[in-house]
Amino acid sequence: MRRFVIRRVRSLLDRSNQHHHHYKNNPFLISSSSSSSSSQYQSRFLSSTSVLGSSSSSMAPAVTVDTINPKVLKCEYAVRGEIVTLAQRLQQDLKDNPGSHPFDEILYCNIGNPQSLGQQPLTFFREVLALCDHPPILDKSETQGLFSTDAIARAWQILDQIPGGATGAYSHSQGIKGLRDTIAAGIEARDGFPADPNDIFLTDGASVGVHMMMQLLIRSEKDGILCPIPQYPLYSASIALHGGTLVPYYLDEAAGWGLEISELKKQLEDARAKGITVRALCVINPGNPTGQVLAEENLREIVEFSKQEGLVLLADEVYQENVYVPEKSFHSLKKVSRSMGYGEEDISLVSFQSVSKGYYGECGKRGGYMEITGFSPDVREQIYKVASVNLCSNITGQILASLVMSPPKVGDESYDSYCAERDGILSSLARRAKTLEDALNSLEGVTCNKAEGAMYLFPRIQLPQKAIKAAEAANSAPDAFYCRHLLNATGIVVVPGSGFGQVPGTWHFRCTILPQEDKIPAIVSRLTDFHKKFMDEYRD
Amino acid sequence: MRRFVIRRVRSLLDRSNQHHHHYKNNPFLISSSSSSSSSQYQSRFLSSTSVLGSSSSSMAPAVTVDTINPKVLKCEYAVRGEIVTLAQRLQQDLKDNPGSHPFDEILYCNIGNPQSLGQQPLTFFREVLALCDHPPILDKSETQGLFSTDAIARAWQILDQIPGGATGAYSHSQGIKGLRDTIAAGIEARDGFPADPNDIFLTDGASVGVHMMMQLLIRSEKDGILCPIPQYPLYSASIALHGGTLVPYYLDEAAGWGLEISELKKQLEDARAKGITVRALCVINPGNPTGQVLAEENLREIVEFSKQEGLVLLADEVYQENVYVPEKSFHSLKKVSRSMGYGEEDISLVSFQSVSKGYYGECGKRGGYMEITGFSPDVREQIYKVASVNLCSNITGQILASLVMSPPKVGDESYDSYCAERDGILSSLARRAKTLEDALNSLEGVTCNKAEGAMYLFPRIQLPQKAIKAAEAANSAPDAFYCRHLLNATGIVVVPGSGFGQVPGTWHFRCTILPQEDKIPAIVSRLTDFHKKFMDEYRD
Repeated sequence: MRRFVIRRVRSLLDRSNQHHHHYKNNPFLISSSSSSSSSQYQSRFLSSTSVLGSSSSSMAPAVTVDTINPKVLKCEYAVRGEIVTLAQRLQQDLKDNPGSHPFDEILYCNIGNPQSLGQQPLTFFREVLALCDHPPILDKSETQGLFSTDAIARAWQILDQIPGGATGAYSHSQGIKGLRDTIAAGIEARDGFPADPNDIFLTDGASVGVHMMMQLLIRSEKDGILCPIPQYPLYSASIALHGGTLVPYYLDEAAGWGLEISELKKQLEDARAKGITVRALCVINPGNPTGQVLAEENLREIVEFSKQEGLVLLADEVYQENVYVPEKSFHSLKKVSRSMGYGEEDISLVSFQSVSKGYYGECGKRGGYMEITGFSPDVREQIYKVASVNLCSNITGQILASLVMSPPKVGDESYDSYCAERDGILSSLARRAKTLEDALNSLEGVTCNKAEGAMYLFPRIQLPQKAIKAAEAANSAPDAFYCRHLLNATGIVVVPGSGFGQVPGTWHFRCTILPQEDKIPAIVSRLTDFHKKFMDEYRD
Repeated sequence: MRRFVIRRVRSLLDRSNQHHHHYKNNPFLISSSSSSSSSQYQSRFLSSTSVLGSSSSSMAPAVTVDTINPKVLKCEYAVRGEIVTLAQRLQQDLKDNPGSHPFDEILYCNIGNPQSLGQQPLTFFREVLALCDHPPILDKSETQGLFSTDAIARAWQILDQIPGGATGAYSHSQGIKGLRDTIAAGIEARDGFPADPNDIFLTDGASVGVHMMMQLLIRSEKDGILCPIPQYPLYSASIALHGGTLVPYYLDEAAGWGLEISELKKQLEDARAKGITVRALCVINPGNPTGQVLAEENLREIVEFSKQEGLVLLADEVYQENVYVPEKSFHSLKKVSRSMGYGEEDISLVSFQSVSKGYYGECGKRGGYMEITGFSPDVREQIYKVASVNLCSNITGQILASLVMSPPKVGDESYDSYCAERDGILSSLARRAKTLEDALNSLEGVTCNKAEGAMYLFPRIQLPQKAIKAAEAANSAPDAFYCRHLLNATGIVVVPGSGFGQVPGTWHFRCTILPQEDKIPAIVSRLTDFHKKFMDEYRD
């Protein structure tokens, strides 16, 4: 409870700061309510401390942390956890008192959010979205001067696919059929195997699809989901929220974060021995936070294993466009399973895709889809029903999902500029990955696998005993201790490995490769200087 | 199980139809995979029937309806239930064989989806969205000719509020701070009491916010949520998905769907006697499906009751702009509680708003917010954490939510056209409500309360015993039986009252007032003719 009291005091302080800041800038506010509302905050403070003793009385607040769903309490999401809260406070400091810290800006390397760091959206995609948002301009002459002809043509085509051209209407619960046709065609073009638009559920980003599958599969804590360690914390959070059990399988850091079937088998058997019914195997390829790209042969083994063990394959393939090394390429688990001759009746497979990653990085549009194959029609009906409760995903995101799966083609007016924008982003990401990887590997006690794909590096830090003791004294995980020191010294925000899971006794952090290229040298030198000082201070 | 086998066969038939339809129109497909995929569907049929006997074998599909989360099975959502599935099939029929039914189009009166029935989006809102989707055109000269000056100015203002102007970036987990400032100012202007942007969580429509609160409040089936009967099935569905108990309180149809505190008290005490911990009281105002607008005095009683009983007040206020009678007006529960002198420490209140309703009807944009007041900072942190797992709501919806809470003002170039569009829609909705209400009341054995607000009528039908017996014989609820006959005879889609809940032994249906005005006469005459024939056939 002590932790919560501290938190409460801290966030009350934050809130009242933000509060005054807000009222300073609020034209509507009359002074009386300003004073009444500050006293309101005073009394809230009193009441929220007095809650602790009196949560049974009917006059106490209706909800306290002791009376909320314990699954919510259990859930953690480090990507926007304590370190980010600290970073936001430092950013406010810099704004309020410039020069108050040894850096002039916060560099958010904690989250895969490219456009927040200056990556520009692809022109063609945005032209089409703008035209679909305001169709009346489509046949105005000025529009010809502002938009490419193929963007105009594509907008007309999409409006034709939307019943009544109504971009402001709820769509079919799975998403607009015409857009699903386009996506299915894109998947077929990618894989060389048929895709059915009726297997596609458009979602507000991939996260929503993952939650839907966890909700479908998890009945109790006796149901387990095999997840890689390290993993993207969406999976641990979603499993916790739905009351299931995360069954970890460890990626082999020494083998470039390799996925060993023997490890899968061992963990599956251990879980079963503990009475856990393992429902699904989650595979993240390219890897998050690990950045490895799985080889086709490895994927075949994974499909065979899932089939033999009767596991649903949950394929997180949102980084399918993010591969940076010539010796590797992306293979979808659906293509691999079909190429093995396995069809609908052989394996249950869900593939997740998102508009947030790739070269487009349209995180804020919340678009994505899941392709569901190998489920019986009655189970599919249940998935459809759950999708229907939320009516549909946002239409802008639906349109964008169709665009990323069907970009401009040779001969289209936008084709050359589209290729230039796409290749510029991907080649720059590859250079940034290599520069940061080399910089990290040059640090004392730090080893970092190659970022073959995705948007992250996940270096291992050999922390001195002295640092580990200091972290313990600060009541903090050693990697969180390191990351907090890094942030306070440099303004660079990374996420402690403990937020993703790691072999006990090893320490890591996740750092995105997303800052713009002109900032990379500064990041490298700041990081290098910090690390040297840190080691000098704590070296055993 | 029989029910599922029937469903499976039926939906397989649907699927294979859609399937061939798809491949007919699919440019990418080479003939070989066309045949392979039809055999694929053949074998899926075999495997999915063989599932029934063999779900334990590791070769069986990983998931069957018998092994999914039973909470998902339990959840129902009639607004997109069986009747709509039938309607979609009829629509396909009409497309494939015109003239195959006694009507030439399906009229969807099942769902509050205005733009799907031809309502046009508001020009100003769409201009701003288009400009924010493609900012490079903002300073092009052609743009002056295509967009209003205040839309251009608003777009600039919004881009300034978004860090880096990045409309494609994940935002703060609660939504973009500048947009929350605008929304808070709009709430203050509406209520005359302060609103804090830090209390606002932007969401992908109101449904997501409702799910978040249910997830927070429901620990087990021993936790109850007081919901009106009839209710919007989002609530029953969400409570079922989160494993809680819906505690019904009945609205008094004879008193214009009045909400009686004595009924609330009775149901609360009954639930507590059964060992249910009632966590929250859900109020839908204006009412869905009932259309009543609660009087201020009634709202005061509700606030007092919630405070005394220590209940969280969940205020579904998404129809706050939809009031059609001069004698009633909308009062937010926050305004009412503040006007009673109750502040943060007195009552926990969540107000839900959406861009899907009102005069804007932007369902497909999936924008909305919840304003959370009267929760301790540590509980708020938990809500923030859950919001963070999904990163943020879609930015287009966030922008739109700020626009509906801050539309053009006197003196803005768009102000007059904005008012004309808004008032045109609202006055037309009022006329449609009245016309349909009168038509329904003129039908034998039908009584319909006034649609004071929202977008629905919920008439009661006195069904003859003969019809009730015929429904039983058809293994159908009597109101579903009536609605299915109505659809088959007229193409009009309405939702049976049993999907919303009703006093046992009474029968209703929900009909939206959303078809365009020129279609209303046809609906009235088709409905009137059908009802007469139906009564002639089944009159006792």
